[in-house]
Amino acid sequence: MVSPDHSGHYESSSPMAKPSLRNKASLWISDGILFLGGAFIAILLIWSLWSIASPSPNPTSDFLRPELKPREKEVMPRVINCAEGEAHGANLRCDSPERTFYDSPELNYSIGSPVMDWDEKRRCWLRKNPSFAPGASERILMLTGSQPSACKNPIGDHLLLRFFKNKVDYSRIHGYDIFYNNALLHPNMGSYWAKLPVVRAAMMAHPEAEWIWWVDSDALFTDMEFKLPLERYKDHNLVVHGWAHLINEQHSWTGLNAGVFLIRNCQWSMDFMETWAKMGPQTPEYEKWGSILRSTFADKAFPESDDQTGLAYLIYKEKEKWADRIYLESEYYFEGYWEEIVRTLDNITERYLEIEKKDEKLRRRHAEKVSEQYGAFREEHLGAAGYGLGSWRRPFITHFTGCQPCSGNHNQMYSGESCWDGMTKALNFADNQVLRTYGFMHPHLLDPSVNAVPFDHPA
Amino acid sequence: MVSPDHSGHYESSSPMAKPSLRNKASLWISDGILFLGGAFIAILLIWSLWSIASPSPNPTSDFLRPELKPREKEVMPRVINCAEGEAHGANLRCDSPERTFYDSPELNYSIGSPVMDWDEKRRCWLRKNPSFAPGASERILMLTGSQPSACKNPIGDHLLLRFFKNKVDYSRIHGYDIFYNNALLHPNMGSYWAKLPVVRAAMMAHPEAEWIWWVDSDALFTDMEFKLPLERYKDHNLVVHGWAHLINEQHSWTGLNAGVFLIRNCQWSMDFMETWAKMGPQTPEYEKWGSILRSTFADKAFPESDDQTGLAYLIYKEKEKWADRIYLESEYYFEGYWEEIVRTLDNITERYLEIEKKDEKLRRRHAEKVSEQYGAFREEHLGAAGYGLGSWRRPFITHFTGCQPCSGNHNQMYSGESCWDGMTKALNFADNQVLRTYGFMHPHLLDPSVNAVPFDHPA
Ligand SMILES: [Mn+2]
Ligand SMILES: [Mn+2]
Repeated sequence: MVSPDHSGHYESSSPMAKPSLRNKASLWISDGILFLGGAFIAILLIWSLWSIASPSPNPTSDFLRPELKPREKEVMPRVINCAEGEAHGANLRCDSPERTFYDSPELNYSIGSPVMDWDEKRRCWLRKNPSFAPGASERILMLTGSQPSACKNPIGDHLLLRFFKNKVDYSRIHGYDIFYNNALLHPNMGSYWAKLPVVRAAMMAHPEAEWIWWVDSDALFTDMEFKLPLERYKDHNLVVHGWAHLINEQHSWTGLNAGVFLIRNCQWSMDFMETWAKMGPQTPEYEKWGSILRSTFADKAFPESDDQTGLAYLIYKEKEKWADRIYLESEYYFEGYWEEIVRTLDNITERYLEIEKKDEKLRRRHAEKVSEQYGAFREEHLGAAGYGLGSWRRPFITHFTGCQPCSGNHNQMYSGESCWDGMTKALNFADNQVLRTYGFMHPHLLDPSVNAVPFDHPA
Repeated sequence: MVSPDHSGHYESSSPMAKPSLRNKASLWISDGILFLGGAFIAILLIWSLWSIASPSPNPTSDFLRPELKPREKEVMPRVINCAEGEAHGANLRCDSPERTFYDSPELNYSIGSPVMDWDEKRRCWLRKNPSFAPGASERILMLTGSQPSACKNPIGDHLLLRFFKNKVDYSRIHGYDIFYNNALLHPNMGSYWAKLPVVRAAMMAHPEAEWIWWVDSDALFTDMEFKLPLERYKDHNLVVHGWAHLINEQHSWTGLNAGVFLIRNCQWSMDFMETWAKMGPQTPEYEKWGSILRSTFADKAFPESDDQTGLAYLIYKEKEKWADRIYLESEYYFEGYWEEIVRTLDNITERYLEIEKKDEKLRRRHAEKVSEQYGAFREEHLGAAGYGLGSWRRPFITHFTGCQPCSGNHNQMYSGESCWDGMTKALNFADNQVLRTYGFMHPHLLDPSVNAVPFDHPA
């Protein structure tokens, strides 16, 4: 059976009992319920394993009675928090073979229309679609996107095309699905707010995905081998690059970066996204939030409420409510600042060549499909490299924050040329890792041409 | 056991005997070899099934002795033609657990360096990588790409980005891998010749793929549900949209279109690509071929040798050698001419709405992952629609031939506006099929905005 929550510890929590029942006097009742609940879960488990083993029923039979029984969810109200790995096995709506949550007229894909009981709904869907069981707890859908119209910057769309190609390469190599959106799903949520409605819609369209991974259009993978350490995030629902002390003590809006995040497809995330989106331009409180955020995070550069400062605010001010489930990743380049990265790429290329000169198995040609294996071989040599600033390990994701490739309105701190050259360099750096499996490489990181890679390169 | 050829008829041909042995006098020897060969194949079959069932060995052990025994392939030379479904079970090089064809220093990813024994090499690789066995005979890698630099047409790259997004959508929905290339793999093979080196390199980098599907950057999927009828192509190695009489009788260079093709990953295709590429600008015979092609196909509009006329030439002039394995598909829009398609899209939209009004299961919301199932449901209603010109079925692939979105140098037959508007319309037509699963749709085909799709739409 597939558990859409991350832990699947059905046996370690009390599936039937409300926490309020667990006072001294009712402890034995509670324990009895615990026992019965455990037995019930076990039966469900066996039943669902059996479902996996048996052929799925004729799909057309799913359509015989699509109407929902009225408001069954009110029979057993409960708080669902996927972060705690709670199990709620008895889901009356899941008993019916012909319906899923999609058949409820109340279902809404838009932000501003809260979803309820999402963990149960997902779990139920997975039980009815057992072919998605293998690997369900690690299944990732990558999301990215850009504006509906052409870019103002003459090379903007060309860069976006290459950034997207890079993400498709990474997704293909690691077997992830990827969705590019260029529609504005909420007419009033533009620019950095536009991603929230996309994430929300994708969570509903992809109940098979445990994680949604938003990656900005101006970010790219510069290590095609590195994989997210999902095990590390098993007790968390949202992962961003950031540092708690910069947010909580220095009150800096750049204490995290909201351009790349990994969010678990669960009720907690649905609730969090609703709260987060309430600071957006589609609400009457947008201006109020602009003032609040600016007064809380003194270094915030512009008056409008933005998603990144909003996220920092929720971590800082609603710590109990949210921050415990948010993982601030700072050990590796979950995303990294391009200006500190780009200048290191040539040196990193050299160091990787040295490794390959020493280890013949890294020089071995192979099918792209088995390239994950070679990443594991290389890891043996990278132990000493460390991660992050000053490391000679390939940075995982390089993010061109402030460069604005599409509008071309880059931060005046940099020249436009340093942005576009930096992107070309990073894109070719990544492309060399991919193209090599197809037998070719760029001779230099600013050279658009490619050469055939000789056998046993670079011995 | 996986057979990388299409039929897998190991038992129906003689794996050990050379055809020359099968004369009257040696028939009994030949039959004896046939029997022994059959037994050997059976043992190999059991061995490989056992390999599939057993855990794969420690991958690092593959690297202990990577050197090849010298020229083993000359011990048993034979012609390999995957089109005939021949089996060549006894492959000495496949006996070694630690090597694959990638370990041969002779291996070359470039066009102009013929590959030998490719069917055996692929089969051997698949035997050593049994996790790719399920679905191997239907595995497709989609390829597309464009030039390394930004487009001259100001909206060119934006259109390429959307065309690529469309292909990624189709690939995600149907579970295909997709690779976008924007490097020129052969410096002298530009524009329409550039795809050949990409296809060749991808065939070597993806031995797990039975088919390579080239789709031009200016073509898009306008039916996200339709699937290639692979069963129809089981005796063929190359599929293009075309009409034999237009090629062989009318000698028209537009009797086929080379912008979209499906090519089997096999020795026949390797040989065919070498022959085809010999007409390209990288050869000393390029000019000669220009004259030959122009004198053979009277309506050819320009003097340079081009890939499309070259393909038509090989079909017409080398029929025995090649044409028997080339399937000219004309029953549906394997690719279709945009000018005749774009004007039908509004009507098609209406007809599909009518179907959905009648059949509630087509209105049912569902996860994107199960959308192939819904395509099958819809098929029940499309029987009467027919295919191709005049049909109200969604055209499978719409190809903007002559529009040149990247350079902007469109054929003077059309206005630029009719090209760009046609593309927007076709892209939104396709996008509506995808976005709907995420809860949104464009209200009109030229409208970049989207609306939430109500429950039970369009009842
Ligand atoms: Mn960004
Ligand atoms: Mn084309």
